[in-house]
Amino acid sequence: MKKINTSPISGTQELLPETQVLFDKLKTGVAERYRAHGFLNIETPMLERTEVLLAKVGGDTEKQIYKVAKTNETMEDATEALRFDHTVPLARYIVEHESDLTFPLKVSQMGENFRGERAQRGRFREFYQCDVDIIARNELPLFYDADVISTLLDAFSSFGLKTPVLARISNRKILKGLIEGLNLQEKAADIYSIIDHSEKVPAEKTAAAFDEIGLNPDEKAKILEFMEISGEAAAVAEKIKALGVKNSLMDEGLSELTGVAENLTAGGYDNFIADMRIVRGLDYYTGTVFEFILPEYKDIGSVCGGGRYENLAEYFTDQKFPGVGGSIGLNRLFFVLNEKKLLKDVEEKPVDYAVVPISDKENAYAVKMANEMREKGATVTVVAGDKKLGDKMKYASKLAKNAIVIGDAEVASGKYRIKEFN
Amino acid sequence: MKKINTSPISGTQELLPETQVLFDKLKTGVAERYRAHGFLNIETPMLERTEVLLAKVGGDTEKQIYKVAKTNETMEDATEALRFDHTVPLARYIVEHESDLTFPLKVSQMGENFRGERAQRGRFREFYQCDVDIIARNELPLFYDADVISTLLDAFSSFGLKTPVLARISNRKILKGLIEGLNLQEKAADIYSIIDHSEKVPAEKTAAAFDEIGLNPDEKAKILEFMEISGEAAAVAEKIKALGVKNSLMDEGLSELTGVAENLTAGGYDNFIADMRIVRGLDYYTGTVFEFILPEYKDIGSVCGGGRYENLAEYFTDQKFPGVGGSIGLNRLFFVLNEKKLLKDVEEKPVDYAVVPISDKENAYAVKMANEMREKGATVTVVAGDKKLGDKMKYASKLAKNAIVIGDAEVASGKYRIKEFN
Repeated sequence: MKKINTSPISGTQELLPETQVLFDKLKTGVAERYRAHGFLNIETPMLERTEVLLAKVGGDTEKQIYKVAKTNETMEDATEALRFDHTVPLARYIVEHESDLTFPLKVSQMGENFRGERAQRGRFREFYQCDVDIIARNELPLFYDADVISTLLDAFSSFGLKTPVLARISNRKILKGLIEGLNLQEKAADIYSIIDHSEKVPAEKTAAAFDEIGLNPDEKAKILEFMEISGEAAAVAEKIKALGVKNSLMDEGLSELTGVAENLTAGGYDNFIADMRIVRGLDYYTGTVFEFILPEYKDIGSVCGGGRYENLAEYFTDQKFPGVGGSIGLNRLFFVLNEKKLLKDVEEKPVDYAVVPISDKENAYAVKMANEMREKGATVTVVAGDKKLGDKMKYASKLAKNAIVIGDAEVASGKYRIKEFN
Repeated sequence: MKKINTSPISGTQELLPETQVLFDKLKTGVAERYRAHGFLNIETPMLERTEVLLAKVGGDTEKQIYKVAKTNETMEDATEALRFDHTVPLARYIVEHESDLTFPLKVSQMGENFRGERAQRGRFREFYQCDVDIIARNELPLFYDADVISTLLDAFSSFGLKTPVLARISNRKILKGLIEGLNLQEKAADIYSIIDHSEKVPAEKTAAAFDEIGLNPDEKAKILEFMEISGEAAAVAEKIKALGVKNSLMDEGLSELTGVAENLTAGGYDNFIADMRIVRGLDYYTGTVFEFILPEYKDIGSVCGGGRYENLAEYFTDQKFPGVGGSIGLNRLFFVLNEKKLLKDVEEKPVDYAVVPISDKENAYAVKMANEMREKGATVTVVAGDKKLGDKMKYASKLAKNAIVIGDAEVASGKYRIKEFN
């Protein structure tokens, strides 16, 4: 009988061993692809000074921060808190260690972050995030935007999903320039927000929202037309120019977008499009922005996102560190992939061989044999104990692909038979 | 100029990328060896219900627990806290999922734990712990004690340390039986504690402590003699029997100790001894106990420890789950190994090849080439941008083992030269 509630708390991931294997494979795949692209891994602590985490954030994120305190302390004593993303700790890391780092720094971070969000199906309060960022001093060539996107696309390839993935790419300068060209700067924040939410609401609601913020029919038509533009980057650039709005920032954004697309094509990628609906929040990002989706499962929404930022660490230092980065939220991704059965069929048993001594007399021989097999790279478990052989074999069949029974005869002859389980 | 204190908080690990590589290698080595021995990996959340964490602990550990609360909550609201070890969450996990698990369950857990200890050099408040445990229903064969110890010894082998490691093994039944045989049950807790601390204080102090708790000269002499006994298990058993104390529990412990030693020898291990000074705390452990040391660096103390327990989850369920397990604290271990320069000399640069386009014209070619090399398993970074070639090569030489410069000629001919950096 249970004496206490033993369920894991809501908003956390807890898997059975056979499912954990699948999750661990995603992790390994991401780490391996990040490394292949030359990213150096770092780990910052999960515990941070509260003032570091609060230097920049406000609003919802601030309310979601988990402060920590010992049992005998009060919340007012809580000068430390759990990180809510990898970006703020990375900014602190760069400023702290800048004299020991080589720039541009291609850096990956993998680990848990924490947010006190309302618990919901597939929403996590403790979540494993896999980030890549490329940070420079003062200036970072456009080249690296495609470097980040292609690394993330490769990470998704490593999952061997049963459904394609698509990168939707835009550039914040395009919409900002369009808004400037239309002389709508004062309504910029509203326009960003309406476009950002447009995929979650019916089209009429988006149109009505533009009316509400006071766009005239011409302006509204232009923005609505703009939002619908997507496809191959050069064609997208043509369509946007055809809107008839002249603006140099817009042109700069279009030129950057086309450049990113060219570099991706050069790398052999074809699973990306230019898509003007991609905005990604309000501030922070200043150039390239992107989100990945699974086009056959649009309801899942974005499974990866990121972009270019002018200044990573402005709250911590006067120095300028521009960068480009992106992040995969592995728990939510795993949750939806698993639920929709989109993961590779790897129903493999975790152990290659179970060595089964018939009695304790054969334990020593079995142990020696197991270690020899491990040295050759096999995963081996020894099933000892005084249970009946049948019971031991039943146990072995649940875990292992093969069994080797060791009795008197096997010890004497040094010969054995490998029994394959189905 | 810095605007804020950007150092990581005390008692956490933060490494430069080139040092992080070494730490990550330890992690990978442990995970790989745990898997080779047939352990299934699981991850429990770092956040747990406070009542789960407090079900068992008391004293210092309770005071060290970090509770978490959102900014707008008070500490009284804090129903959740950060795990302080892997054992309590494992107990909860076993009880929660027992009907879906196959016993004996060989299980590994790797991840961060948190304790509000006073910060000290080489002491961590956020620390990465690598555990293996084997859990059964009702009864677990002695065989598995050696299975755990050999797995941990193999994990240490994977580090390729420049100094040997030694497992010191005892069995709690031996000392418990001796104490019973001497009729000193009422002083048992004190005796355990004095022996447990005896390596950290001068010998006179230990002797004096036995006087203080009222041992007579005979009893004191026996215990002091007992404590000094170490070496090959069978010889140790003889010496203990020669103390002339008769007790069946003691005999049981000696027989188990000898059995563990035999299984380790069968597996090809010789870096272990029986050592009566190993006690490991007061309760919880009930049979085999062990600690690993680096004999050439005794001042480091224990670098791994564990043992056999009768009942993993007694605070959560009426069912009996005996087990045996052990744990490596990777941050502290890495700290001392790094400080004493005992890690393998792997000063390798993290990137195999830097592909360096002379100008942006060659970017596309460089990207294509890099991806082809990655498909063959290489770690490749592309060094783009409009800096001088000399600057780009200097950057490449810091990160990569080799560089490939791509200019007009290379693009035209498809031929290139690999420059090896020293």
